[in-house]
Amino acid sequence: MSKEVASSKQLTEFVKENRVVELSDYLSTLDSSDIARAVVRLDMDDQVKLLGMLDPESAAEIIEGIPDLHAVEVVEEMPTEKAVAILEELESDHLVDVLSEMDGDASKAILDSMDHEDAVEARMMLEYPADCAGGIMISEYLSFNQDLTIKDVLENLQTNQEEYADYHVQYFYVVDEQERLTGVLRVHDLLFPPRSKQLKEIMISSPLSVADMTGLTELDQFFEEHTLFGVPVVDKNNVLVGIVLPDRVEEAVNKRKTRTFLRISGIIGGEEFRTMPLLSRSGRRLAWLTMNIGLNIIAASVIAMYQDTLAAVITLAVFLPMVSDMSGCSGNQAVAVSMRELSLGLIRPGELLWVLLKEMRVGILNGLVLGLILGSIAFLWKGNIWLALVIGGALAANTLVSVLLGGMLPLLLKGLRLDPALVSSPLLTTVTDMCGFFFVLNFAAMVLPKLQGV
Amino acid sequence: MSKEVASSKQLTEFVKENRVVELSDYLSTLDSSDIARAVVRLDMDDQVKLLGMLDPESAAEIIEGIPDLHAVEVVEEMPTEKAVAILEELESDHLVDVLSEMDGDASKAILDSMDHEDAVEARMMLEYPADCAGGIMISEYLSFNQDLTIKDVLENLQTNQEEYADYHVQYFYVVDEQERLTGVLRVHDLLFPPRSKQLKEIMISSPLSVADMTGLTELDQFFEEHTLFGVPVVDKNNVLVGIVLPDRVEEAVNKRKTRTFLRISGIIGGEEFRTMPLLSRSGRRLAWLTMNIGLNIIAASVIAMYQDTLAAVITLAVFLPMVSDMSGCSGNQAVAVSMRELSLGLIRPGELLWVLLKEMRVGILNGLVLGLILGSIAFLWKGNIWLALVIGGALAANTLVSVLLGGMLPLLLKGLRLDPALVSSPLLTTVTDMCGFFFVLNFAAMVLPKLQGV
Repeated sequence: MSKEVASSKQLTEFVKENRVVELSDYLSTLDSSDIARAVVRLDMDDQVKLLGMLDPESAAEIIEGIPDLHAVEVVEEMPTEKAVAILEELESDHLVDVLSEMDGDASKAILDSMDHEDAVEARMMLEYPADCAGGIMISEYLSFNQDLTIKDVLENLQTNQEEYADYHVQYFYVVDEQERLTGVLRVHDLLFPPRSKQLKEIMISSPLSVADMTGLTELDQFFEEHTLFGVPVVDKNNVLVGIVLPDRVEEAVNKRKTRTFLRISGIIGGEEFRTMPLLSRSGRRLAWLTMNIGLNIIAASVIAMYQDTLAAVITLAVFLPMVSDMSGCSGNQAVAVSMRELSLGLIRPGELLWVLLKEMRVGILNGLVLGLILGSIAFLWKGNIWLALVIGGALAANTLVSVLLGGMLPLLLKGLRLDPALVSSPLLTTVTDMCGFFFVLNFAAMVLPKLQGV
Repeated sequence: MSKEVASSKQLTEFVKENRVVELSDYLSTLDSSDIARAVVRLDMDDQVKLLGMLDPESAAEIIEGIPDLHAVEVVEEMPTEKAVAILEELESDHLVDVLSEMDGDASKAILDSMDHEDAVEARMMLEYPADCAGGIMISEYLSFNQDLTIKDVLENLQTNQEEYADYHVQYFYVVDEQERLTGVLRVHDLLFPPRSKQLKEIMISSPLSVADMTGLTELDQFFEEHTLFGVPVVDKNNVLVGIVLPDRVEEAVNKRKTRTFLRISGIIGGEEFRTMPLLSRSGRRLAWLTMNIGLNIIAASVIAMYQDTLAAVITLAVFLPMVSDMSGCSGNQAVAVSMRELSLGLIRPGELLWVLLKEMRVGILNGLVLGLILGSIAFLWKGNIWLALVIGGALAANTLVSVLLGGMLPLLLKGLRLDPALVSSPLLTTVTDMCGFFFVLNFAAMVLPKLQGV
């Protein structure tokens, strides 16, 4: 029995028999990834009951350890007040992640039962798209009015020590009466000046900040350029609304990359975990696959048009998938390089011509090399030079077509505001299949008498 | 003329004519991604000259903005003392990134000319693999002996203000005589106690730390669990050797994800940028493609074996690529889910059986749906129920084979310590092509008389 199965069984037992203390003790022997693996494999009812048996803080830790989509499912099944108690233990940005995945009614119920101030903050953060500064900022930061003195701040710090324990108190943000950002202070700036000084006298004025709608790519670049612990986020009136930390930016970039990877692989409509119900897993995958049938029919129709040629030289059928598959690989390489250069900001969608020129040279060179290899193989097999020319020529031509297309597609799609990750690969495959079949069969039709008896 | 071409031209002009002031002024009008795009498109000689014309700090900023591989090429072309001056301006982990990409002689020459203390540090960090705590830690942190008093520390801070400006001084690390980590202090811990207290009296003892060989996945999990500004890294004797910041962990995870993406797309042996020389770009891509020819021959040989069947029912040739391509897509979905679950730690390589059971149900369901669709299309086209059964049955069977294989491959390869990203997809394609061709042609051969005249 694998360790996961054993852990899940053990957990189920404690949960079913309401053995709270043993459950907590047992969980404390596991590390967080073991817990995550074991918990997501329980029945939903048991997951809900398990979280309910723990204190909110421990339950929140488990919620943070399992994927967001899973977390949302469990939270939605819980009684509202229990869910609220747990969610209030999450950091603000994780809370917003979970709330944003929930359906509207459920998240409204939670927000209505939450501490008023936290709810106002969360509602404000939920307004922002997930991939901008407002969507990934945190609200655990300290801001003080600029007229306060160092003494006031130190007293405040000492009084609220406990509450601030989880805060990121390396910087203090300084604001005016209208909550507009006017300065920043590091803790060690408080060490040396006399304690009667006002913050506005010692603060660093006009600090770096980012607008709430700043996108991920710019944020990433911002932290590449500035080694900062975090950056304050302001709205269009320069009012301080949150703090963005560099690791949250990287995390968001990472999430986007994962979505890209999943889309390229044909998993659309969000993530899939094998612990999800069969029908939802099957349905997500089918959405993509049935669309693919359509594309495949388009490509294969070329073969249908050339059935006579194919019937006359049946050997061609062996080479058809090879030519189309090889070109597909060449095209995918070009897609990958374009996607990478786009995401690094090394090319812009408008630079089609530059990309075309660069890909043309690689396409011609690689087409010749690959065509020579596959042509030679065809010749060695059947001893017919015309077959070698048809196959080699078709592969060379199709390689060129597919690297040109593969290099351009991400730029074109990005220019059209379509998702290159989702659309590039199936479009490319369809076109390179079509062209591959066409080149082989059309070239063969042109020299058909020379191919008889192959 | 695109903006990049214009910028590159302008830069070339300033560089060729040695107009230092105008060059600096012009660069200050561009943002860092414009600069990166423009600089990498210059001739190598001009890139080297440009960096030489700037002060080391500005040159270092440009070096940080362009991809590592490019940066290394430029630095290797520069005179050593110039290169050293620029590299010394980089943060320690970026410096190590660049040095580790250089060839041995070049990096040795740089290290020999560097400030002795920095060189010792860099050499130590170069010893570590890139994907562990030692490989991504920074050396810009403050550590003090535990016997010092708060007063000593404050004086040290004030004396070295300038040097520490770039440091991450939110925490101080406390060590004993042997440089072993004994505690940690936050700046605000210095605010309240009397200044004559020794650090060991006020520090948080036995602080969290990670071993220098801790892997990325564990580090990522560590920061998921602990909201910390950074974590001290210790060697096997508990000697403090560096600090790991959470955003550097995310950055390294991101890099690994990018490598995975490029490998899946068939770009191996490192990254490719279109500004690289043609032969190196073409060669990297061919390395992969020529290997693929071999795999394609294996798959296509199945068609060669069944040429007679195919010649008898040429319509089958239309469906061959459809069945193999569709199954390839199904299999890739399963690969993606497995790779994702592996990287999240939701499954372990040993859990083949669990994955098989989960995939079998999806495979049977999706196989039936897709087989029904494609079979119906075949029937509508040719009106032959046997053809529909052959095609639909082959697709159903091959879908099952490919999701089972796709789900298992990443686990198997990971268990064998092979790179799932690199090997899963081509292996999968080869097998699903072979099986697809086999199912269609073999099923057809079994009912050949019923298919006559299709």
